[in-house]
Amino acid sequence: MNDLILLSHGSGGESMRKLIEFEFLRYFSNPILDELLDSGVFELSGTLAMTTDSYVINPIFFKNGDIGKLSVFGTLNDLCVVGAKPLFLSLSFIFEEGFPIQDLKKILNSISIAANSASVKIITGDTKVVEKNKGDKVFINTAGIGIIEKHRDWRNRKIQEGDLVIVSGSIGEHGLYIMLERLGVETDEEVCSDLANMTDIILGMLDNFNEVKFVRDATRGGVATVLNEISQKYHVEVEVYEEELPIKEWVKNASEVLGIDPLYAANEGKAVIVASPTQAPKIIQYLQQFDISKDARIIGKIKGFQKNKTYLITRLGTRRILESLKGDILPRIC
Amino acid sequence: MNDLILLSHGSGGESMRKLIEFEFLRYFSNPILDELLDSGVFELSGTLAMTTDSYVINPIFFKNGDIGKLSVFGTLNDLCVVGAKPLFLSLSFIFEEGFPIQDLKKILNSISIAANSASVKIITGDTKVVEKNKGDKVFINTAGIGIIEKHRDWRNRKIQEGDLVIVSGSIGEHGLYIMLERLGVETDEEVCSDLANMTDIILGMLDNFNEVKFVRDATRGGVATVLNEISQKYHVEVEVYEEELPIKEWVKNASEVLGIDPLYAANEGKAVIVASPTQAPKIIQYLQQFDISKDARIIGKIKGFQKNKTYLITRLGTRRILESLKGDILPRIC
Repeated sequence: MNDLILLSHGSGGESMRKLIEFEFLRYFSNPILDELLDSGVFELSGTLAMTTDSYVINPIFFKNGDIGKLSVFGTLNDLCVVGAKPLFLSLSFIFEEGFPIQDLKKILNSISIAANSASVKIITGDTKVVEKNKGDKVFINTAGIGIIEKHRDWRNRKIQEGDLVIVSGSIGEHGLYIMLERLGVETDEEVCSDLANMTDIILGMLDNFNEVKFVRDATRGGVATVLNEISQKYHVEVEVYEEELPIKEWVKNASEVLGIDPLYAANEGKAVIVASPTQAPKIIQYLQQFDISKDARIIGKIKGFQKNKTYLITRLGTRRILESLKGDILPRIC
Repeated sequence: MNDLILLSHGSGGESMRKLIEFEFLRYFSNPILDELLDSGVFELSGTLAMTTDSYVINPIFFKNGDIGKLSVFGTLNDLCVVGAKPLFLSLSFIFEEGFPIQDLKKILNSISIAANSASVKIITGDTKVVEKNKGDKVFINTAGIGIIEKHRDWRNRKIQEGDLVIVSGSIGEHGLYIMLERLGVETDEEVCSDLANMTDIILGMLDNFNEVKFVRDATRGGVATVLNEISQKYHVEVEVYEEELPIKEWVKNASEVLGIDPLYAANEGKAVIVASPTQAPKIIQYLQQFDISKDARIIGKIKGFQKNKTYLITRLGTRRILESLKGDILPRIC
């Protein structure tokens, strides 16, 4: 096996077969994948969810993760927020010619650990190679399939005035950390991405609380963008309290230096939740038990209908419109 | 809306939302996608198949198709060859900054036509943007979900000595045409890709013939590589007759000029099939009814076991080993 990915590794021929058999199958062997059919085949019945994401993050390796771990957890998070238990993933690589096979091994290992930790199976895949400077190291696409048990399906629950808005933990870490990393800033151990698999905490929350009415992963665009999606989708006014926002000290500092508001910075392990005022405090108690959601907080409230706006009540008590992310502050954050 | 794709279109914020609402949803509106959840949600029960492919073809527009049509039909073909009726697709774009929105509209239109023609729904998607020279125009990933009716599931049928090898039509067209296109050669109308959705003919074949024992899409690596997969997977000797190979005149000519054997050139609408000797001739009759498989032919035979080799019986009557594609003759063909 050569040390670098060559165009021939995407040819469909012998070198691709060897790459798949000697590298990929070593990490992901399971009866479905081992059949090596054009499609992965499995039995499943019920309300299913499917999602997809292409990951183009730069850098591909970072302090507490890499593009591989992100490709698994990012897609699992998209499934669990609709109440789906993730089961199967597809995995598709676009390599830039010359990508080191050593780095591929690291990524495959990290995908394998992430998938095993979540009991999901990689059941089908694809490998393409593009010429030098027609790609950037590696892009990964994962698509995921999950199953929604009826009691976890929040889609038909009605958001009402007075419902509370929760964020599942401290915000802005992934985006700000990746930005610091890209700038080559040396950082302490605590300064890292919040990349985490939220499946267990989100499904557990949906098992225990039947008045959860909305859940969304606050990735690109940050919490502010999700809040705007809520106000636009349900035609409601959302009011958010600046002083309730859980933001770590290093995020505050970095955000001041970089001029990036943590409300707009990407998260990779945080959800925005809307729940009834009776259950919201208990949901906070539930979430605070777990490490990845120990800073869960009620940050806002659903106010009037027909307003389609999100407002921030600042520390000074003033009220300003909180818009969706405009322009592009952080390219290739995921 | 700007005329070019900007980094901000991948930001997760306002410009991305507008791109999705004004462009994507216009083409793919359906109740599942319109919910705009992190995942597409649907009801389904049975034996399911999932597949994925990233498409990096260059050029992105060609005579009888484009990267959009290819992204749909390529994935449908991977589903139908395992006996699955395709139902749902995910759709994920990686744009190079500066990609013209006019071209995106053409591609979306072509995806929409292709998906509608096959009655499949796009139920979830993703959009990323990378900097100039970190990608190449646009890469598209589709993942597909289909359902396998029991009588179409050939996976447990045993390949036996004497079974016949069929190719569903003339070979090598996609690969050789794209190569000519890339070289800027002016070509007649008949010189084009064989890109086609094989779903109806393959599922119809599986409905009518219960002694079909293997079906595979002969894409990258060509028919020779699929034949080698058969001999390696089932530990059989496969004998192929050169004079039976259906090859169009222009493919023969192009293959001589370019030095590319049509047996190794990619197809995008051709399958290799193994069936019992009693049913194979009837399968040929069945396939020849349809335009995309009118040149279907029995091209070979399963000989002894435990050989793991594919042989070509040449026009001169000599016998030579037909290996898998070595190296890389045609990068970025799909």
